[in-house]
Amino acid sequence: MVSIADSPQSVILEASELRGTMGKPNLCIAHSGGVTAILNTTAAATIRRARESQQFGTIYAAEFGLNGLVSGRLFDTTPLTDTQLTQLSHTPSSAFGSCRFKLPDYTADPKPYQQIMQTCADFNIQYLVYQGGNDSQDTTLKLSAAQSHFSHPLAVIGLPKTIDNDLEGTDFCPGYPSAAKYIATSIQEAALDTWAMSKNSTQVFILEVMGRHTGWLALAAGIARSHPEQAPHSILIPERSFCKKTWLDYVKRCVSQYGFCVVVASEGITDQQGNALVAQSRTDAFGHKQLGGVGAYLADLVSTQAGLKAHWALPDYLQRSAGHLRSAADVACAQQLGEAAIDALLNGQHSVMLALSRTQSTPVSWQTTTIDLNQCANLEKTCPLDYLEAETNLLSDAAKSYLTPLLTGEASPEFMHGTPAYFNRSDLRLALHPNTTEQIV
Amino acid sequence: MVSIADSPQSVILEASELRGTMGKPNLCIAHSGGVTAILNTTAAATIRRARESQQFGTIYAAEFGLNGLVSGRLFDTTPLTDTQLTQLSHTPSSAFGSCRFKLPDYTADPKPYQQIMQTCADFNIQYLVYQGGNDSQDTTLKLSAAQSHFSHPLAVIGLPKTIDNDLEGTDFCPGYPSAAKYIATSIQEAALDTWAMSKNSTQVFILEVMGRHTGWLALAAGIARSHPEQAPHSILIPERSFCKKTWLDYVKRCVSQYGFCVVVASEGITDQQGNALVAQSRTDAFGHKQLGGVGAYLADLVSTQAGLKAHWALPDYLQRSAGHLRSAADVACAQQLGEAAIDALLNGQHSVMLALSRTQSTPVSWQTTTIDLNQCANLEKTCPLDYLEAETNLLSDAAKSYLTPLLTGEASPEFMHGTPAYFNRSDLRLALHPNTTEQIV
Repeated sequence: MVSIADSPQSVILEASELRGTMGKPNLCIAHSGGVTAILNTTAAATIRRARESQQFGTIYAAEFGLNGLVSGRLFDTTPLTDTQLTQLSHTPSSAFGSCRFKLPDYTADPKPYQQIMQTCADFNIQYLVYQGGNDSQDTTLKLSAAQSHFSHPLAVIGLPKTIDNDLEGTDFCPGYPSAAKYIATSIQEAALDTWAMSKNSTQVFILEVMGRHTGWLALAAGIARSHPEQAPHSILIPERSFCKKTWLDYVKRCVSQYGFCVVVASEGITDQQGNALVAQSRTDAFGHKQLGGVGAYLADLVSTQAGLKAHWALPDYLQRSAGHLRSAADVACAQQLGEAAIDALLNGQHSVMLALSRTQSTPVSWQTTTIDLNQCANLEKTCPLDYLEAETNLLSDAAKSYLTPLLTGEASPEFMHGTPAYFNRSDLRLALHPNTTEQIV
Repeated sequence: MVSIADSPQSVILEASELRGTMGKPNLCIAHSGGVTAILNTTAAATIRRARESQQFGTIYAAEFGLNGLVSGRLFDTTPLTDTQLTQLSHTPSSAFGSCRFKLPDYTADPKPYQQIMQTCADFNIQYLVYQGGNDSQDTTLKLSAAQSHFSHPLAVIGLPKTIDNDLEGTDFCPGYPSAAKYIATSIQEAALDTWAMSKNSTQVFILEVMGRHTGWLALAAGIARSHPEQAPHSILIPERSFCKKTWLDYVKRCVSQYGFCVVVASEGITDQQGNALVAQSRTDAFGHKQLGGVGAYLADLVSTQAGLKAHWALPDYLQRSAGHLRSAADVACAQQLGEAAIDALLNGQHSVMLALSRTQSTPVSWQTTTIDLNQCANLEKTCPLDYLEAETNLLSDAAKSYLTPLLTGEASPEFMHGTPAYFNRSDLRLALHPNTTEQIV
């Protein structure tokens, strides 16, 4: 059973632990940005490969990403057994915690840099593996660039991660295939439900999915659809502006022809003037922007302006933490990247992001490549418009060739008494520096 | 791949088909109320057992439940192969369609009864297996009681079904364990996500689940929780009135103690005056009652009155159609009931509902029992209040003893190219009476 909030034990480290085993330099991993179903998979693979290499002392994981590096709160992964690492690998989210932490420019505010470097010096951390999305690679870039200001050496390597799949320079972003598999499966199931109820009840079902600026997740919902009468009938992505009248006419036509209409909408779709649909229409106490709203908005349109009964769903965090429905391809690549990070560091590489390059399609395989951080930090990769046919909402062959290998294969966790047996956070040990002011609990 | 909207082929029946094979009487199955992940499982088991018995002619399934019986639109299941029946058994929702159709009192309006009996006479249907919730058993009762008005004999048997688990007279309602497993798994996963983001982002996560008058589904979310610090920290059920101040204080205390707070709320919770929270607060164009709202309402409370960042999710149909995450116990009992319906009819039983009685807990087993329709139709079974400890929101031992066997075991569908390979509706054949005015397409 999961013990989500169990407190890890805190231990003040000995001098020998700070130096690392046999004087070897220590390594730290850290997570950044929204979590995914395979962040822990990469972490477990990184820890395993680092252990096997015998080139590192202690392997740490920062508590809440950059926060842990700033505050000197790190987990010591040494006590984790092979069995625990395997369980960690199957567990969604980040067992160490992630962060939304934007580093300021060094010249404007060097303080967080100094704090991070102090932690690294205190714990003799000379290697950092930082996994995140396009904002997070900005951190990798800034930390790498700030190196010259410090006497303590720190080799930083970036790893990609985001369910939004909007990172440049990589075939896909780990985390995306599992979230996409969840969306594609859920929409098929909800479509079966909607059709079955369409005679006396709901005719229109709307699934609001994440993707503020890019439609990759919504796009994946169409993977199993080969004819216009199949669901999802409508796929709304931010890359294509939303026209109320055209869309309502289309929904009405679907209901008239097929008896029902199933819709997938990215949370970030905009009208023809480029304004977000939600921001436009949310003026009451219910409408905090971050709480979603496109699903409710569209359902309201359908019921008030087309006279059709609509239901809508908002999976929110469920879509990015669905460890029970991960893509095997995602899991395999997440492991590959975790191992590659260690290999790259040991080969003297740093200040780059590792990425995935598709080497062949059938059977599919990927290899790890190296990306200049300037080619991915803060950049956004949008859905090619020719991936989604405008009139029918059918995915192009190119889109299916791209998506199908990503979603293929299942990687289920073990279950115990009916629910997944995920990694227990209380198995972690919070490692504290002797100078810490932390209370040991 | 799923072909959700593919039209089944329509065939006008021959006289010999209407009579049934070797003059044997025909059987019809029909679904009623909100669909579940195991309605088709029962249907497939019923069809299989009926075939094996060799006591029936044609086995029909009504299109959209009672609608198909009123209009004479029935699927002929004869062409379905064993492989197709197995696939049907793994497919959520109802492949034949369900209904929200309340029969009027016979004395007030006999017309729909006459239409149904005309269909049964036309197709020589003498047996009907009707599966639904407490409203639907009202239909079974009314159809049984109206028998005396007709010369054509019709033996009706009711089967339970509802994710709300609120039907009297049965240990549980098929469909509930699978939806409960989905909720319990999803909340664990979302809790891992929320904790990981709690340092710089969301501290409170709210999952709005179905259950308008009963809290069975919300209750199941607490199955894996054994300490107050574990998620879900708060379980809100309609059986216990909601006090804004008490709840907000509790949420703030959780965030202060554990860093985050995870909440599961039934859609139908009410305030201390017995008014639904949503109806109270939804006065804008966004708030159609059937579209949910408690999640948004609570998230709004948390952010505006406690100053905490909140996210909320509304799985809606996803929770009742999650065929990818079914409970093995649910599947086994659904099959058992489907087979028992045939055995009961062949034993001369009718005008009753079959139910499940738990014979032992370890290892768990159930047997089929017979319930008087007056003891289940239109009645609602609520959650015992002692199942949920008021102060800590921990489930009692009695609640865990009841729930654990229901959720245990996984029953996964086959996947193809990344998504479940569900039953294809185009494999169905719509059987039409020679007198039909239906256009053959």
